[in-house]
Amino acid sequence: MPSASRILARCDRLAAHSEQADGLTRVFLSPQQREVDALVLQWMREAGMVACLDAIGNCVGRYEGLEPGAPCLMLGSHLDTVRDAGRYDGMLGVVAAIECVDALHRRGRRFPFAIEVVGFGDEEGVRFGVTLIGSRAIAGSFDRNWLDQRDSSDTSLHDALRAFGLDPGAFGTVARRPEQVLAYAELHIEQGPVLESLGLPVGVVTAINGGNRFEVDLDGMAGHAGTVPMHLRRDALVAAAECVVAIEQVARSMPPVVATVGRIEAQPGAMNVIPGRVRFSLDIRAPGDELRLQAVAAARDAIDRIAQRRNVKASWRALWEAPTAPCATAMQEQIGAAIAAEGFDVHRLPSGAGHDGMAIVAIAPIGMLFVRCKGGISHSPAESVAPEDVDAGARALLRFIELFQPPVREAPR
Amino acid sequence: MPSASRILARCDRLAAHSEQADGLTRVFLSPQQREVDALVLQWMREAGMVACLDAIGNCVGRYEGLEPGAPCLMLGSHLDTVRDAGRYDGMLGVVAAIECVDALHRRGRRFPFAIEVVGFGDEEGVRFGVTLIGSRAIAGSFDRNWLDQRDSSDTSLHDALRAFGLDPGAFGTVARRPEQVLAYAELHIEQGPVLESLGLPVGVVTAINGGNRFEVDLDGMAGHAGTVPMHLRRDALVAAAECVVAIEQVARSMPPVVATVGRIEAQPGAMNVIPGRVRFSLDIRAPGDELRLQAVAAARDAIDRIAQRRNVKASWRALWEAPTAPCATAMQEQIGAAIAAEGFDVHRLPSGAGHDGMAIVAIAPIGMLFVRCKGGISHSPAESVAPEDVDAGARALLRFIELFQPPVREAPR
Repeated sequence: MPSASRILARCDRLAAHSEQADGLTRVFLSPQQREVDALVLQWMREAGMVACLDAIGNCVGRYEGLEPGAPCLMLGSHLDTVRDAGRYDGMLGVVAAIECVDALHRRGRRFPFAIEVVGFGDEEGVRFGVTLIGSRAIAGSFDRNWLDQRDSSDTSLHDALRAFGLDPGAFGTVARRPEQVLAYAELHIEQGPVLESLGLPVGVVTAINGGNRFEVDLDGMAGHAGTVPMHLRRDALVAAAECVVAIEQVARSMPPVVATVGRIEAQPGAMNVIPGRVRFSLDIRAPGDELRLQAVAAARDAIDRIAQRRNVKASWRALWEAPTAPCATAMQEQIGAAIAAEGFDVHRLPSGAGHDGMAIVAIAPIGMLFVRCKGGISHSPAESVAPEDVDAGARALLRFIELFQPPVREAPR
Repeated sequence: MPSASRILARCDRLAAHSEQADGLTRVFLSPQQREVDALVLQWMREAGMVACLDAIGNCVGRYEGLEPGAPCLMLGSHLDTVRDAGRYDGMLGVVAAIECVDALHRRGRRFPFAIEVVGFGDEEGVRFGVTLIGSRAIAGSFDRNWLDQRDSSDTSLHDALRAFGLDPGAFGTVARRPEQVLAYAELHIEQGPVLESLGLPVGVVTAINGGNRFEVDLDGMAGHAGTVPMHLRRDALVAAAECVVAIEQVARSMPPVVATVGRIEAQPGAMNVIPGRVRFSLDIRAPGDELRLQAVAAARDAIDRIAQRRNVKASWRALWEAPTAPCATAMQEQIGAAIAAEGFDVHRLPSGAGHDGMAIVAIAPIGMLFVRCKGGISHSPAESVAPEDVDAGARALLRFIELFQPPVREAPR
């Protein structure tokens, strides 16, 4: 059986590779990614897989089926983190999948299909402002323009790939054809409070909520903090502050929409200068595409009205959009059957967070298995999972693999 | 006569020493300060002064009087800048004073008093969050604790002084006794729109407005931007945004108070994470001490109420406080007489911006001469002065020196 204690110990080992000493931050193509890639590839090989880094920086391990070259059941999650992250978001799914393959390998079990485990290099999008870079490359939806996307040090994705030893022009080689991937299944912590409130260790995901991300610039006029009277100011930060409050109001008025301004930068950024320009991020998510687009329009309308009233110029840049990604009915049923076979009640719930399945759904039926996490807390050092819940999740994932039947493809959305 | 064209050319030369290529930023104890110090000390020497860098990083030039060792009339301004600054704020006053001494030196004019020109190393406080470091050292009010103040790279003032080749323990040697300084006079651009609206090239300053600076921290709870419902959030950035709007309201309701939030930082600062902590700066200024303290109390009250309602923790840190610094009546009269002697109408106005005189007033009577600037714009690359206004200012300053009579000390405030 898979070992929950080894899974947790490996999550701890991965968490030691962080850009800061007193917390966990590991972004795409960083020195810390290189360190964890070495560990993950080694664990994959020890579990009987052929493993290597692909051209976009994903760790890919393949456990052959009864016939070499068979299409695969793809498992996995991501290895990058948000800033000041928890140690289970992403990593738990990669490590648990390796653990399941290891259990099968030790028993010499092979299937009519191969199993591939992918540790995606970028899901969170912290460094380049574009998410799901790893899984989009595999799904064949990587946009060449993203190579020009720049991080806060003005390094482009193109140059970062090259500095990492990868070939930026080779992202196309990573893409899989639909016939190569029978299905994609991901184990992940819930990152919300539902399973905890129901007293259940695991759950079946019905869909991944859609989302939009924008970068908004407000241009006012800089000036001396002591000499420009209040009524003559065009302070971009006060305008942005009104926008942040208005965005919260929009989301509160349209539940269960959520909207978040996570980044804000005021320029020139000195205590004694009126901010002339402010840039902030906007992340809006909803469980239905129509509701989500209504919320986006309402936020945009509110921002435009504030900008007009304050005589500042508002510019929007769409960074990212993802429609709702439904989990395949057959995958929900098979994951539910595996959970039931391990003796747990089966509860279905949507995912408020984004996941790599949002990209992979373009080439394969997707399914997700959620593991309860403490207080629903994620994207925080306080992220925590109980060993018995990890055990339940890993056993259910292994059972799912053993029972896996390739789903019939559903009609394209 | 002083040369306006050379003054402007020297301001251009100083502006070339910037940490960025496409704008002007020069902070205390930076490599760029070292470069301009070399130029300024050279210009001082060419103007007949003995010149050197003092222990805190001020450029000090001394033009002896008829008797060596006589007390001095101190002139000057600062050589550091805000971020993305104009090229006249500070530098114009240093260069114009050197130009006046040069004109006297060429004519062999000596007075019963010495003339000292000081290019203060730090007035703006951009790097360490504490302003007037140079002039406070000269006034003997440098606080030893400031040596522990850290910049954004976590370098302390102590270590930055040492790295610059200075002795952090020697700041006390810079302090002047009141009997060594007969008066302090500073030429500076107005940084506001009053002289322009009156059609006057120069004006006499009545007082430098007092001010307070604070750093405010709001601690809420970080969380995943997709999974935490709006009603369960403790978003520190939405709380901060309400504070920024409320601070504007406070200032608008108490004219002519001005209040500015110039810096804001949301942590962890990722697009998909609810900000758990926000830090922002607050700068409040007013022409009277009572009014200013009322505004500070009102801002603090508003922030505390917002924090309480949103269940976030607000912490205040006072960084700086300066009372109103009145210009000595005798200095106002002498500067006004010099302006009149050059053929201009004499207009008196307060200074909304802070200046080195706020520190020097502790040891000497102070006076200031404002030069009109275009649109009242300062702390911006758009800062501009007309050559004929620079000529008027430099001639008035030279005339002031020639007519200077040491003021009788007024009673301490």
